[in-house]
Amino acid sequence: MRRFTFLKGQATLNDFIVIEDHHGMQDLSPSFVQQLCDRRGGIGADGLLRVVRAQHVKDWQGDPELWFMDYRNSDGSVAEMCGNGLRLFARHLMNEQLVPSGRFSVATRAGVKEVRIARGGLISVDVGRPRTSPEPVTVNHGGSEWEATVVDVGNPHAVAFVDASELSALDLSRQPTWSPEATFPDGANVEFVHETEPGRISMRVHERGSGETMSCGTGVVAAAAAYQQRTGHSGQVVVTVPGGELTVDVEGAHAWLTGPAVIHMRGEYWA
Amino acid sequence: MRRFTFLKGQATLNDFIVIEDHHGMQDLSPSFVQQLCDRRGGIGADGLLRVVRAQHVKDWQGDPELWFMDYRNSDGSVAEMCGNGLRLFARHLMNEQLVPSGRFSVATRAGVKEVRIARGGLISVDVGRPRTSPEPVTVNHGGSEWEATVVDVGNPHAVAFVDASELSALDLSRQPTWSPEATFPDGANVEFVHETEPGRISMRVHERGSGETMSCGTGVVAAAAAYQQRTGHSGQVVVTVPGGELTVDVEGAHAWLTGPAVIHMRGEYWA
Repeated sequence: MRRFTFLKGQATLNDFIVIEDHHGMQDLSPSFVQQLCDRRGGIGADGLLRVVRAQHVKDWQGDPELWFMDYRNSDGSVAEMCGNGLRLFARHLMNEQLVPSGRFSVATRAGVKEVRIARGGLISVDVGRPRTSPEPVTVNHGGSEWEATVVDVGNPHAVAFVDASELSALDLSRQPTWSPEATFPDGANVEFVHETEPGRISMRVHERGSGETMSCGTGVVAAAAAYQQRTGHSGQVVVTVPGGELTVDVEGAHAWLTGPAVIHMRGEYWA
Repeated sequence: MRRFTFLKGQATLNDFIVIEDHHGMQDLSPSFVQQLCDRRGGIGADGLLRVVRAQHVKDWQGDPELWFMDYRNSDGSVAEMCGNGLRLFARHLMNEQLVPSGRFSVATRAGVKEVRIARGGLISVDVGRPRTSPEPVTVNHGGSEWEATVVDVGNPHAVAFVDASELSALDLSRQPTWSPEATFPDGANVEFVHETEPGRISMRVHERGSGETMSCGTGVVAAAAAYQQRTGHSGQVVVTVPGGELTVDVEGAHAWLTGPAVIHMRGEYWA
């Protein structure tokens, strides 16, 4: 029997298992990650965050003293980055006094990411510059179509602006389609956005490969960038997703994603 | 902050939180149970089992020394009984040495239930006599219809016999319907069953109020009883469900449901 200590938490209801592995001793096979993330037979989560010193990560060229976020999807595959995962990872580093202050760097497969602890204990991460395209795409779903903004936040997004009634009525159990299809040869995350008041939007998202989710960090940033391009609004954007509320502040090449992240359980798992 | 010790386990992938409360001191409000059973913000489970001495249960008239299974659905409501929940409850009593032997009684809202530890550590519970009706009902789903057997196992079931290809192709995201409608004025669990060899059946189930589930204890017993009535088979019936394998042995007024039940984690939850 394998005995395994874990923590679990969530950031706007994206939920993650956290495994402490400071010295890089854990062999987390894809099938074991899948087992841990299983919601009935395992612990259950959208993904897993392994906490390891960067010096123990093969091929890491940067500061060896940084904490490295080894992110795994629930299917066991490796992912480069996850905005909400990074926010929860930062919460854990703070809780366990693994970082000395409220502003620090985290190593990820997508490079070094900056983190700040914000007002009220919310956690901000810099997810980098969102790049909006001048060429729109047409999103089709459930017999309707909308012109959508194409945004690159390291991964591809299509942001469609819809009415309040359309937003609540959408059935996102199926993948939306777009034309021209060639705009996203590898698929895309599709955000449906409605402005509730100036500077505030509500959003639902269909994530490539996952379906509708409660929150999507890069999707929130993409939606805020598309909203700014569409309306000329230049300040902070408050984004409500099914899992809670996030804010986006664009400062030059940086988009800071801010919101809650909470570790809510600790336990032992017997495999 | 409320700090809460729990265990979690599963019985053919029906998963349950187990809360120790020997002296009946815990106030588990429906909203708190809902929070604990939430798969993202809580611990996550199909239901919760509170372990309490029967003497601390209001209105309990029987043996005060028995362990009482206080079963709650994931929506916080109280339920009388759950075959797979009872099997996991029994596993926990054994693990913690709260019962003296491999054969014991458990108090439930549906009365005293008998439990046996079977070969290979599997757990058997007596779910009582299934009553098949001589009057069939017609089940309609996805454009097809089947004659189905009506079975009462304390709760209502319709058991339809289908082809192997039909069984795997069924889309159970929607509730099947039946006629005459008056057969089940309060709804029913619908089982789709296929005989794989004599004495062995495969089954999928749509549970009233829950949708398709990985396993359903009373549904498995209903399917076995309908199979016996239909084929004249009189011995043990082996039933494969998406969550694993169970056996049913009918002995007079008793139907013993046998299968695995495992506690796989223990932890602390911070509300």
